[in-house]
Parts: sequence; structure tokens; C-alpha cells
Amino acid sequence: MEDRYTKGLKNLEKIHPEASKLLMENLKDIAPDLGRFVVEFPYGDVYGRTGLDLKSREIATVAALTAMGDTKPELKDHIKGALNVGCNRNEVIEVIIQMAVYAGFPRAINGINAAKEVFEELDKNK
Amino acid sequence: MEDRYTKGLKNLEKIHPEASKLLMENLKDIAPDLGRFVVEFPYGDVYGRTGLDLKSREIATVAALTAMGDTKPELKDHIKGALNVGCNRNEVIEVIIQMAVYAGFPRAINGINAAKEVFEELDKNK
Amino acid sequence: MEDRYTKGLKNLEKIHPEASKLLMENLKDIAPDLGRFVVEFPYGDVYGRTGLDLKSREIATVAALTAMGDTKPELKDHIKGALNVGCNRNEVIEVIIQMAVYAGFPRAINGINAAKEVFEELDKNK
Amino acid sequence: MEDRYTKGLKNLEKIHPEASKLLMENLKDIAPDLGRFVVEFPYGDVYGRTGLDLKSREIATVAALTAMGDTKPELKDHIKGALNVGCNRNEVIEVIIQMAVYAGFPRAINGINAAKEVFEELDKNK
Amino acid sequence: MEDRYTKGLKNLEKIHPEASKLLMENLKDIAPDLGRFVVEFPYGDVYGRTGLDLKSREIATVAALTAMGDTKPELKDHIKGALNVGCNRNEVIEVIIQMAVYAGFPRAINGINAAKEVFEELDKNK
Amino acid sequence: MEDRYTKGLKNLEKIHPEASKLLMENLKDIAPDLGRFVVEFPYGDVYGRTGLDLKSREIATVAALTAMGDTKPELKDHIKGALNVGCNRNEVIEVIIQMAVYAGFPRAINGINAAKEVFEELDKNK
Repeated sequence: MEDRYTKGLKNLEKIHPEASKLLMENLKDIAPDLGRFVVEFPYGDVYGRTGLDLKSREIATVAALTAMGDTKPELKDHIKGALNVGCNRNEVIEVIIQMAVYAGFPRAINGINAAKEVFEELDKNK
Repeated sequence: MEDRYTKGLKNLEKIHPEASKLLMENLKDIAPDLGRFVVEFPYGDVYGRTGLDLKSREIATVAALTAMGDTKPELKDHIKGALNVGCNRNEVIEVIIQMAVYAGFPRAINGINAAKEVFEELDKNK
Repeated sequence: MEDRYTKGLKNLEKIHPEASKLLMENLKDIAPDLGRFVVEFPYGDVYGRTGLDLKSREIATVAALTAMGDTKPELKDHIKGALNVGCNRNEVIEVIIQMAVYAGFPRAINGINAAKEVFEELDKNK
Repeated sequence: MEDRYTKGLKNLEKIHPEASKLLMENLKDIAPDLGRFVVEFPYGDVYGRTGLDLKSREIATVAALTAMGDTKPELKDHIKGALNVGCNRNEVIEVIIQMAVYAGFPRAINGINAAKEVFEELDKNK
Repeated sequence: MEDRYTKGLKNLEKIHPEASKLLMENLKDIAPDLGRFVVEFPYGDVYGRTGLDLKSREIATVAALTAMGDTKPELKDHIKGALNVGCNRNEVIEVIIQMAVYAGFPRAINGINAAKEVFEELDKNK
Repeated sequence: MEDRYTKGLKNLEKIHPEASKLLMENLKDIAPDLGRFVVEFPYGDVYGRTGLDLKSREIATVAALTAMGDTKPELKDHIKGALNVGCNRNEVIEVIIQMAVYAGFPRAINGINAAKEVFEELDKNK
């Protein structure tokens, strides 16, 4: 068990270190096991797999969350994650624009607004 | 106008040539303009853009359609498209498995079933 | 109670008489109260309201069901319903094409396929 | 008609008395009939049915709203409702965590955040 | 190309002039091409089509966005748009109430709240 | 690792033994790790938890899958699962009918049709 958790923490550290600390902190009192599951399953079991590079994994996640449309906080975390594993800002924007085709313009526009907020936060903290 | 259409057709030819012929054939009598829009906007305007390679674009689309869950015919077309622009089968499977995290196991399992059908069709036609 | 039911049946008769008979038949043994609720609430309470004409109501429903994407049998019923209350085929097609903008091309294409099936059934039964 | 309304009000009173007053107040000027429908159909017709206890009904609703993901105000109302009809906080948390499996981790995490807000409001008002 | 853009701007001007200016302004630095696509495809290609009047088009869009549930800013823009092309407030309310039938009460209630915000903004600016 | 897997298999055996064998068989060649994840995470980690009885867990899942609408094979498996852990048919029907309120009538009707298919299969195999 420890192994999956440790592996998951390492992947989280590479992908979005601050976001994951906040998430764990947030879940700690109310649903600590959900926090542990997030480390173990998505980051330990799935992101730890070979066969697809981390950059492609984050592109897939940004695409899916933009298309689902109702998960802005997680979309923002994964936009940061995408940048942290090697996407440039333009690539993130392209993924989101492309979602206009598959999930409609409103969700693409809302995704761009999420990216805008992330980029502004990053620029402010530089 | 011709220009976007021509550019779109070229991109469609690279990504999923048979699927697009079937789609156009299918839309021809009932909604030919939707067929034209498909060529012009997604394939002419969006897939024709620089800034993101075609392989990443197809990874994004496979992810989004798996997560949306109700668009199996289009998911199957884009699984083929992903293979046509340089993904291997394993990468496609990895993208779909990852969607268990973001859109739940049922949609990931259904996405794998779509991939299975595509791979079987491709193997039969070899 | 009888009143809402009677009013609902009258509206159902105007909008999609065959579809509603099949639905009631289908729900009769397993969930007859859901069948009654369909008559009373959507058709008795909602479609019976003044303030919006039946044609506009069916346009709204065809749009919503196309955008939701996973309810093809009901979409087909309401495409028939739209035709029964005064939409022509072209108007139905236009509503569905427009959904490419709001819910993405895959759902619009699937909506067009639903319309195609309806139109073919109607032409065969002429 | 009065009968369904009266029955609905009684069920609303058991499930979430404050929430329903706010809802009615909120809908009063703009869409009073939607307020009436809420009382009559969900609470008069559906929650008034035998065959499933209120606690199980609220578990079903919390699960569905967590999985749908875009209806936070209603999810919060039904988390309160679940507590009011006999669920303990831990059971509510378990239902929401389980949704990670069926609708993905982002919606489960957002559901937990909704529960957290509800629990904090309840603790403050004690 | 100019032609679609010019046509799109004219349709945007009829439907929601202020909203579209804000949108373009908002997308200008981060994704100006998405702004251009919004003008060209939805408003130039789709809303510019004959075969369905603008009022019916806005009814379809308000219905779809209410049913999708996660796109409140765009729903508000299209509620304004519906009023600008000839719907009265009551018709907008009726479309949204009807969505309780097809997409559930929570999304209908949230749609009514969006309408309420729009109507209050309009009344304040009178 | 073995431990979660063994625990998961035991829970699967209680909930839907045939369905899970078919699923594993189906995933075996194409995505065996997704099969393993299904055993380990949903059934080993989540259904193995105390704090909510299995019957309530299946009610939650039937509700969520009915509301999501696009996952009929999994909904059918969990309708069987609900019956296997102590729900009677009427309780399953009540959960699905209730979803008309939260996710609209089309998804409730489609859920009832899924239940009908399950009940007929069970009656045939008696």
C-alpha cells in the first residue's frame, strides 16, 4: 500500500505540487480516505504507468475536463499540471479551443477563461 | 470558402479518410451543410492550426469523447484517427484507461469496448 | 387528478399519438405510475400551459435532447412531435445543426442521424 | 390539486424545511408555477410514494446530484435533507466518495466540498 | 473569409451586442482566434442561415444551455439574446420551466435563477 | 496489492458474480490492467469500506447511472447487483422513477427499460 502512495506522491510532486497539498489539506478532516485514494489510484496507479508520456496524459485530462465543463477547480489544476510537465501555454490553449468542436463553444470559452485565470496567477507569482 | 474546404479535406484525408467519406455520404441528402461545416470548421479551421501536433490533437479528442460517453460512433472514428496520425494502440488504451479517473469507470470500460471493436475491424481488414 | 390526466392525454394525442401509446404499453407492467406521471406532469402540467406555443415547445425539446445526446428514443419521438405540431423537416434539421455550436459536432451528427431515421420511417409509412 | 400540494409541503417540511422556503421565496415573483410544481411533483407525487424509505431516497438523490456535478445548490440542499431524514454525516461522505468510481474524482471532490460547506453551516448554527 | 466575419458580426449585433463585445475583449489576448471562430461559425455560418427564424433559434439555445446546466454565463447571454430577437420574458421562463421535464428540476431551477439575474440587470439599466 | 484484489473479488462475488466474470473476460486481452483496477479500486477500496451498507451503495449507484444516462450496460449490472445485495425489484423501480425529478423523464424512462430487460433475463433464467 505504502508503495502506491509513495509513487503517487512523487507523480503529484511532478505534476501539480501546490494543488495537491491544498487538496490533501482540504480533504484531511472531512474525507481523508478520498485524499489517500487520489494519491494512490490516479497518481500512483494511472499516472505512474508507462505507455503514455506525462505531457500527453495532461493533454488528455485538460481536454476531458474542458469537455465535461462543470469541474473548473480541477481543470485549473490540470492546466498548471500540463505546463509543469512540458506543455507550453499555446498548446494548452489549442487543446481547449479544439473542444469547441467536440463539446461546443460555451465549454471551450469557459475553458479559456480557466486558462486565463491560471496564467494570470502564474504571472503574478513570478 | 473553397480554401477552408480544401484544407479541411486534406486534414480529413490524413486523419480518417474512410470515416469522413461515410459521414459525407450519410449527411448528403439530409443535412449537406452540416457535412460541409464538418470539413470547414473542425478540419479546415481547427485541425489545420499550428501550435499542437496532430497526434496530441487526437489524444485530446479520444479523451474528451470517452469522457462524454454518449458518442460511440465518433469515438471509434477518432480512435482510428489517432492510430492514423501516429499513436500506437497502447497509447490509445492508456488515454481511455486514464478517463476512469476523470469520468468514472463505466465510461472508461465503454471506451475500451469501442477500442476493441476498432482494433478487431482493423485486424479483419488487414 | 383525472383532470390533469385527461388534459395530458389530449396534449399527447396532438404531439405524438403513436409514441405515447407505445410508451404507456411499455411501462404498463413494470412502472405504470411513471407512465401516469408522464401524462400528468410533462403533458398535463407543462405542455398544457399558455405562454409558449406548441411548436416552440417542441423546438426547445428537440434542441435539449440533441444537446444531452444520450436519449435517442425520446429525441426521435420529439422530432415526430415537432413535425406533428407544425415544424417542417427543414426547421427540425436547422435546430439540430445549430446544436453543433452548443454541444459539439458529434451530438449534432447523431441528432441528424436520429432525424434521418424518423424521416425514413415516415416516408415508408406514407 | 390541493391534496398533492399539501402532501408535498409535508414531505418538504420533513426533508429540508429551510431550503424549500428559500426556494419558494426565490421563485415566487419570476416563476411561481415552477415552485408549485416542485412541491407537487417531486415532493407530492414522488417522495410521497411508499416502496422506498426517505433515507434511501435521499441517498439516491445525493448520489445523482454528485454525479451530475453542475447542481451544487441542490446538492447542498439534499445533503441537509439526507441528514434530516436519518443519514449520519459519515454515510453522506461515503455516498459521495463512491461517486469517484462512477463519475470520476473531480465530481467526488467537488461533492465533498459541498458537504464540507453544509457541515460547517450546520455547526455554526448549532 | 471577411464575408463570414462581417455576416457574423451583423448577427451578433442583432442578438447580443454587449455580450459579444465583452467576449471578444475577453478572448483578445489569450485566444483571439476562438473569438474570431465564434463570430464566423456560430454567428456567420449558423445563425445566418435561412430556414429557422432567429426567435426559434434563441429558444433552442436557451433550452439546450439550461439542459446542459454548466454554462451559466452563456445561458445568461442567450436569455438576453432571446429577448433581443423578439421573445418576451414569459416565453423565456416557459422554455426554462419545460426543461424540468427533460433535464430535471435542479437545472430548471438554476436556469430560472439565471433568468432572474438577467431580468434584474435589465431592469436596473433601464 | 494481493490483499486489495482478493477483497475486491469477494465483494464482486457478492454483488454481481456473472457480470464481473464477463467484464474481466472482456478486458483480458485489450486492457487487463483496467480489469484489475476495477477489482482493486471500486470493489476492493470503496465497496469494502464500512460506514455504508451494500444495499445503500447499490441504490446510490443505480441512481447515479440512471442520471448519467449513457452507461446502460453498467446500469444493468448494478440493477442486478442491487437485487443481489437485498433490494427488491420495487425498490429499484422507485430509485429509477425518482430520477425523473433530478435528471429528467427521458433518462428515467430509459432506466426503467434497462430494469425491464434485467428482470426479463432473470425470469427467463429462473
